[in-house]
Amino acid sequence: MLHHLFAINRTPIAATRAAPHTPRPPVAFLDPLATSSIANPAEMSAVAASLVVSVRAAPARSGAAKISQTRATRVVRAIPPTGRGASVVPNAASSDTGTAIEQLQFLTPNEAKAVRDEFGTPTYVYDLNRLEEQASKALNFPNAFGLTVRYAMKASPNAAILKVFRKKGLNIDASSGYEVYRAVKAGFEYENISLSTQEFPSFFAALVEKGLKINACSLSQLEQFGKAFPGKEIGLRFNPGLGSGGTGKTNVGGPSSSFGIWHELLPEAKALCEKYELNVVRIHTHIGSGSDPAVWTKTSGMSLTLCKEFPSVKTLNLGGGYKVGRMAYEKSTDLQIVGAPVKELFEQYKKDTGTELHLEIEPGTFLLANSCSIVSTVQDKVTTGTDGGHTFLKLDAGMTEVLRPSLYAAQHPLVAVSAKGTSPTTTEKYVVVGHCCESGDLMTPGPDDAESIAERTMGALEIGDILVVEGAGAYCAGMSSKNCAYCAFPKFRHCWARLL
Amino acid sequence: MLHHLFAINRTPIAATRAAPHTPRPPVAFLDPLATSSIANPAEMSAVAASLVVSVRAAPARSGAAKISQTRATRVVRAIPPTGRGASVVPNAASSDTGTAIEQLQFLTPNEAKAVRDEFGTPTYVYDLNRLEEQASKALNFPNAFGLTVRYAMKASPNAAILKVFRKKGLNIDASSGYEVYRAVKAGFEYENISLSTQEFPSFFAALVEKGLKINACSLSQLEQFGKAFPGKEIGLRFNPGLGSGGTGKTNVGGPSSSFGIWHELLPEAKALCEKYELNVVRIHTHIGSGSDPAVWTKTSGMSLTLCKEFPSVKTLNLGGGYKVGRMAYEKSTDLQIVGAPVKELFEQYKKDTGTELHLEIEPGTFLLANSCSIVSTVQDKVTTGTDGGHTFLKLDAGMTEVLRPSLYAAQHPLVAVSAKGTSPTTTEKYVVVGHCCESGDLMTPGPDDAESIAERTMGALEIGDILVVEGAGAYCAGMSSKNCAYCAFPKFRHCWARLL
Repeated sequence: MLHHLFAINRTPIAATRAAPHTPRPPVAFLDPLATSSIANPAEMSAVAASLVVSVRAAPARSGAAKISQTRATRVVRAIPPTGRGASVVPNAASSDTGTAIEQLQFLTPNEAKAVRDEFGTPTYVYDLNRLEEQASKALNFPNAFGLTVRYAMKASPNAAILKVFRKKGLNIDASSGYEVYRAVKAGFEYENISLSTQEFPSFFAALVEKGLKINACSLSQLEQFGKAFPGKEIGLRFNPGLGSGGTGKTNVGGPSSSFGIWHELLPEAKALCEKYELNVVRIHTHIGSGSDPAVWTKTSGMSLTLCKEFPSVKTLNLGGGYKVGRMAYEKSTDLQIVGAPVKELFEQYKKDTGTELHLEIEPGTFLLANSCSIVSTVQDKVTTGTDGGHTFLKLDAGMTEVLRPSLYAAQHPLVAVSAKGTSPTTTEKYVVVGHCCESGDLMTPGPDDAESIAERTMGALEIGDILVVEGAGAYCAGMSSKNCAYCAFPKFRHCWARLL
Repeated sequence: MLHHLFAINRTPIAATRAAPHTPRPPVAFLDPLATSSIANPAEMSAVAASLVVSVRAAPARSGAAKISQTRATRVVRAIPPTGRGASVVPNAASSDTGTAIEQLQFLTPNEAKAVRDEFGTPTYVYDLNRLEEQASKALNFPNAFGLTVRYAMKASPNAAILKVFRKKGLNIDASSGYEVYRAVKAGFEYENISLSTQEFPSFFAALVEKGLKINACSLSQLEQFGKAFPGKEIGLRFNPGLGSGGTGKTNVGGPSSSFGIWHELLPEAKALCEKYELNVVRIHTHIGSGSDPAVWTKTSGMSLTLCKEFPSVKTLNLGGGYKVGRMAYEKSTDLQIVGAPVKELFEQYKKDTGTELHLEIEPGTFLLANSCSIVSTVQDKVTTGTDGGHTFLKLDAGMTEVLRPSLYAAQHPLVAVSAKGTSPTTTEKYVVVGHCCESGDLMTPGPDDAESIAERTMGALEIGDILVVEGAGAYCAGMSSKNCAYCAFPKFRHCWARLL
């Protein structure tokens, strides 16, 4: 889809210009994500209201003492209708080689420059259209007898994003009691929130009485719930003994995973339900099923087998974990393809049991991953010679904004844009690092080892040019390192882009 | 050293009890580290004043509507004078096997319980005596012609810790312009702060005019400084081409490191200094020299060779990176041993050049690592069976408090304490995980692979018991993951312990 203009919708925020040589950084800071605490409801209200965009204008770059809505609209709309993804080096046809030059996902080079001109860097830019399109795709997941899509909000608990998904009709998967409150503050009703958590909140009773749905993820959680609410409806999260990924590695399913009630403990779970007369209405499994429909068939089948153990079950929640390709050579899950056999299994289940099971899914990464780009500046460029050395680009961003490369050796597209807002006409190999004094603050790890460094071929850049980190929507703003987000580099921004 | 009582010094903080069933978590939250922004000087002042301890009382546990200083003192002083590190299983003599049961570092089991009773969990407990002792050791680093010890504040930029080290006579190594402001707010003078950063702050001129010392870490930084301050004194940080660790891996020295001016660029650096008539008074190298005196001799020698290139140099800064053993089988750096050859080299340098070089060192981990323990609660215990499965302990802490295991497969001692405040009498093997719905939230990774899981033998624990994470002073509170510190689990505390 081509779009020809974009507008940034945001509330005007007063930004103060620092007087020269005063003992404070020359930025005005308003980042509700970083400064708010869910523990203070009054504060959360303010967050929910103002989080359309957070801006700390960098006077050194923009010179703006106050950014008005009018000016922002004018400036941004002045962008000419250039094509998308117009990096000069075409994406190699052999996209599975991993050697393709990565392209911009939704901004044009000139728009990336406009974002920097208006907001400074680093700035997370969210594409509202993509968020909504992905939500629509999730809502079209094949189903036989009804579907609820729950946004796995831990992927990015930004209140503004929560509101977008709420408007689209999504419900919420919360991973902690605090997330429940955050979702409520963003406008969700308790009954539209489901909690599946590693740490059962001490205050769960208050939430359940308001209407929160709980999936007990361990025998201990089940017992706590039963004691508090004997006779009530509950969901059970099981670990069916299978997960994507290798043995012995951290995973969301299988014997190396601590998530959910181990399937062999089914008798113990049943006994607790009987003891407290609990009515099991949902079964939940989250096994990271990837993009292979055969795996979906297998895992759905295992989950449905668990449903049969509880005749009162009306809903099966298959969790999330749908693979999204960020790099050009990575494949993404087609929900129509993986969902088709799931729908058939639900139809068969009805034939077998007479029960029309409602389907729930919990996408996070699927909704967000490629809907956000971080516009950053190359603030230094250094070399360590030609004898085993590298050319390093140093960003004004890093593990403070995107921890995934350091944590998981995750590969994110890094796209070069000149300071003038054009695509470079030549390519170079770089190691790209962040701005923290931390050797692990690395944007180009080896694909299998977060502690090894790899060179990436991209458009040639100099100090002052722009580098766009793509695929930064999920587990980036929501899971970055504090080194030292509250201290060393407290300066990222968020903005919306509505591409017309 | 045995201590027999401890007192927690803190300012009383009002904690509100949540009314049942109100839409807010039942905790009162005051965590200046998490909620403050260095960008707001007024806010920072408040932080600096109140950060002796931050407490969010958990009424569900303590039932305290308000914790008064009087009560806290009484409760804590009531702890009987038991011995230290009294875990029942003695540390194996073959401590290099890695199989030893880890011991408590400074708390007794009963004191760990007292911390939980008073503050809830998770709580970072800092041992003031250890902090001061480590500072004293650093101040005794062998030197020929004077020494300045700079605290590498990125290890933990907590204002209360900064104040402790300021009182001990330490200066500051800041890794960003924002850290400079934070140190100033904690009471440091600009002239006692040295900045060596990956991202040169746009506002560096304001800092330099106040007295900040800068070490240019790249040719670009050097040029920016020269343009702004021709004729002024400056320091140069070099990458001498050698670092600890393997080739091709992230490191703080050598061709795989982006830190400092590559040594082969010496002519270019000299040319820039001449162009702007800069007076190079400091040479800085940070090569992570570990605990081997032979390595120190080699790296110091390389650094002194660089000093000879600039006759105006009066100070050599050797950075930090002194290995500290957290696990029983790990060795720690003895500064007296590694410093002895450094002192000799400085004396030789005087014979060669007539210059009495001042020595600077920048410890971070050395000062903090083993001076902090996290008291956490085992909030769940699950199993994945006997066929390749594990018993998992789930903490009410995790990557939100200690990211190092997930990020670097770092090994931290995990010490079992019963809910009654005693050492367990039997041992078990566990996989210990955090509370985030994130498969990488793991406290017991394999020693070489953050994504593999390993079992750890420790005292046997049940739900509700205590687990103390040791070695949590450096790069823990200061470099934990936001997943979702501001959202999912915004509830850690800090407290001081002054062991008498």
